[in-house]
Amino acid sequence: WPKDVGILALEVYFPAQYVEQEELERYDGVEAGKYTRGLGQQQMGFCAAHEDINSLCLTVVQRLVERGRLSWDAIGRLEVGTETVIDKSKAVKTVLMQLFHDSGNTDVEGIDTTNACYGGTASLFNAAAWVESSAWDGRYAVVVCGDIAVYATGNARPTGGAGAIAMLVGPNAPLVLERGLRGTHMEHAYDFYKPDLASEYPVVDGQLSIQCYLRALDRCYAVYRRKAESQWQQAGIQRPFTLDDFKFIIFHTPFCKLVQKSVGRLLLNDFLATPNPDTATGLYKGLQPFRGVKLEDTYTSKEVEKAFQAASQEIFNQKTKPSLLLSSRNGNMYTPSMYGCLASLLAQSSAQDLAGSRIGAFSYGSGLAASMFSLRVSQDAAPGSPLDKLVSSLADLPGRLDARKRVAPQDFAEIMKRREETHHLANHAPHGSQADLFPGTWYLTRVDAKYRREYARKPI
Amino acid sequence: WPKDVGILALEVYFPAQYVEQEELERYDGVEAGKYTRGLGQQQMGFCAAHEDINSLCLTVVQRLVERGRLSWDAIGRLEVGTETVIDKSKAVKTVLMQLFHDSGNTDVEGIDTTNACYGGTASLFNAAAWVESSAWDGRYAVVVCGDIAVYATGNARPTGGAGAIAMLVGPNAPLVLERGLRGTHMEHAYDFYKPDLASEYPVVDGQLSIQCYLRALDRCYAVYRRKAESQWQQAGIQRPFTLDDFKFIIFHTPFCKLVQKSVGRLLLNDFLATPNPDTATGLYKGLQPFRGVKLEDTYTSKEVEKAFQAASQEIFNQKTKPSLLLSSRNGNMYTPSMYGCLASLLAQSSAQDLAGSRIGAFSYGSGLAASMFSLRVSQDAAPGSPLDKLVSSLADLPGRLDARKRVAPQDFAEIMKRREETHHLANHAPHGSQADLFPGTWYLTRVDAKYRREYARKPI
Repeated sequence: WPKDVGILALEVYFPAQYVEQEELERYDGVEAGKYTRGLGQQQMGFCAAHEDINSLCLTVVQRLVERGRLSWDAIGRLEVGTETVIDKSKAVKTVLMQLFHDSGNTDVEGIDTTNACYGGTASLFNAAAWVESSAWDGRYAVVVCGDIAVYATGNARPTGGAGAIAMLVGPNAPLVLERGLRGTHMEHAYDFYKPDLASEYPVVDGQLSIQCYLRALDRCYAVYRRKAESQWQQAGIQRPFTLDDFKFIIFHTPFCKLVQKSVGRLLLNDFLATPNPDTATGLYKGLQPFRGVKLEDTYTSKEVEKAFQAASQEIFNQKTKPSLLLSSRNGNMYTPSMYGCLASLLAQSSAQDLAGSRIGAFSYGSGLAASMFSLRVSQDAAPGSPLDKLVSSLADLPGRLDARKRVAPQDFAEIMKRREETHHLANHAPHGSQADLFPGTWYLTRVDAKYRREYARKPI
Repeated sequence: WPKDVGILALEVYFPAQYVEQEELERYDGVEAGKYTRGLGQQQMGFCAAHEDINSLCLTVVQRLVERGRLSWDAIGRLEVGTETVIDKSKAVKTVLMQLFHDSGNTDVEGIDTTNACYGGTASLFNAAAWVESSAWDGRYAVVVCGDIAVYATGNARPTGGAGAIAMLVGPNAPLVLERGLRGTHMEHAYDFYKPDLASEYPVVDGQLSIQCYLRALDRCYAVYRRKAESQWQQAGIQRPFTLDDFKFIIFHTPFCKLVQKSVGRLLLNDFLATPNPDTATGLYKGLQPFRGVKLEDTYTSKEVEKAFQAASQEIFNQKTKPSLLLSSRNGNMYTPSMYGCLASLLAQSSAQDLAGSRIGAFSYGSGLAASMFSLRVSQDAAPGSPLDKLVSSLADLPGRLDARKRVAPQDFAEIMKRREETHHLANHAPHGSQADLFPGTWYLTRVDAKYRREYARKPI
């Protein structure tokens, strides 16, 4: 297998407009803090009707290739993970092949993968396996995740968001997928799904979905730990895996508050797995009453949640909080969500901080599919090193978020309504202004009578 | 990499009812022979409203595991290629996890892949790469392809079909995916797609789709040949690759007649690539007038098509015709189509005939994604060998086709109409009789008010 297969470069796209969650609380007439403190959300990015899943992915892939000064010929695999399905048959990947047209490179494997927010992770695993397989021809793989997360008016609406992320995958990467360390949990569940194909909105059982998420987290962490401990045993090391072994932990983030609870949940897992935890002092202080609980009985226990969230506060602040920049200010992007956390972490850390660390990653897609895996950051943080380049390329992320346009809640609601009414019409020019896009953004110009979609790019 | 990664077992499911194409011609009031001679179709299988993509895949996976006496624990990867999307977010794969429930095995990677009829091939490539990658844990991969191909009344309706195929993938396989021999062509095209998400029916530009198919065939064959010749060169062999190097050739089969034309098309490719073809005698006899044609100018040339179809008749009869049993008698199954051709070929050949041969395979999905690759059949055809077991397991295919129930065209049209009206209703028990299913078939019993689907299995 080639050495150090993983992520070489990472490109982020989010909409150029957002709504303030605090203003949304007032507009929706809910109690103050419901979206901000309750969900942990600050702002939410959104698209007007002239952006769709194809345009998002066109933008982010072109940006990845242009900023990385790559040749279109250098890509041998390209695949898309999305649940923003606007055609039941034609893959977004095929639309992206327009970008390759002038290069004449059409020998590009990979298509679309779908399961809620998990599609990007499935694509990343597939791309890495391709690089390690006999089918690899030495070229890069590109993994794209993109989604437009919109909800009907009501409780779930503030948990929306939109965006796309493209990753360059190959050997000698600064972020290496750790071999053999992967825990997966897959299960049949109706927690969040999209059976009404004519609508952009999902059917959601919010409480069930949180329970499914936490159960999947427990199961994935158990399998991950078992594999890590077994690797250590083979190397002659006999000790349990704990959260200490992750310097950072990133999560799929439906809303930031759930991620904070999830760190507490992982601590509960560590606590229950420790033979004789010290509950008199230190990390587990005062947790003795929870010694006998069973994981499967605690998914709805506010008591357990509160105790372990409090106990893990410092762990959360250190290992996870820096990764929530995009999630809190742009919202849930679905498939790109966890990779947005990765970008946020890189954007707010120095190469020196990151070098040599292990980043734990938990990816969840309702329905359900989930995996925990880890990225090992390269040791070399010298100026000009691959890690330094990757980190530097993301340094402008906070500035780019600041550069967005704030839209009032009533205008946001109006745009959502327009989107709802027109997002699937044939023979139609979608509503939306070029002025509301960042330079270099692709947008939908027309859907013809046969539903064929045409796009243009706003000049850089 | 593990030795001989490929297909170990293969399971086929098709509906227990069909309509005669000859009767359909009369019912539709078209000229006699339009569907039978014109398209090359004999019969068409179809599902009533109580079968959906989930039930098809449940049936074929359970059949694969039961007949192969596998343990549910022995499977470490399961993925589904389909374009029969009934939920934009939730993967069919997650529904299949119900089958694993009692085993407790939830650490099963892989989700759904989509691009028209190409999803099964993408899944097969992904599964093989997984077995060759560091992520492989020694367990089997299962690849499922399934689709329900239905068209609105009119010209395209007789090109429908339905079915599902499951493949067991791992090392030491009797059908080995030849390493490094793969030609891919991907392109943005609107030849066949499904933009009206509320409908089961596609939007089709039939003529464009045939041109796209043939162009993709040309491009994939060119890349495949180049890679084969380059492998030979490295081994010191200097000669061109021709159709002679495939003992059998299987194709994605929208309708059988297109496949016959495609064999002619491949011969045209060989002819144009030969420096000084003998046009006085033998295979190329009389083809001198076509010496100067360019591939890209001939997609609509009836003259070229006719000449090369005639010249390749014997090649077609030997290398391809036996693979069209399921395509002609059950119709186009979309993603499983090419794998149905593989099953048909195995069902109608002896292990001795197959042993050591190379099977060329062309997979096409509109939109478009296409690959040509090849399977090398193991040398060992002894009784009880993996090849013998695989071939024997498919011997009942013609008998199973004969055992189906013939339905009159007017009843078929009635069932299609019912399907159209009800296939996407919530709070609904679908129409269809258990009597019209083969034993061991899963079927949809209810869609509740929240669109959650429940299934039952007809006893074996």
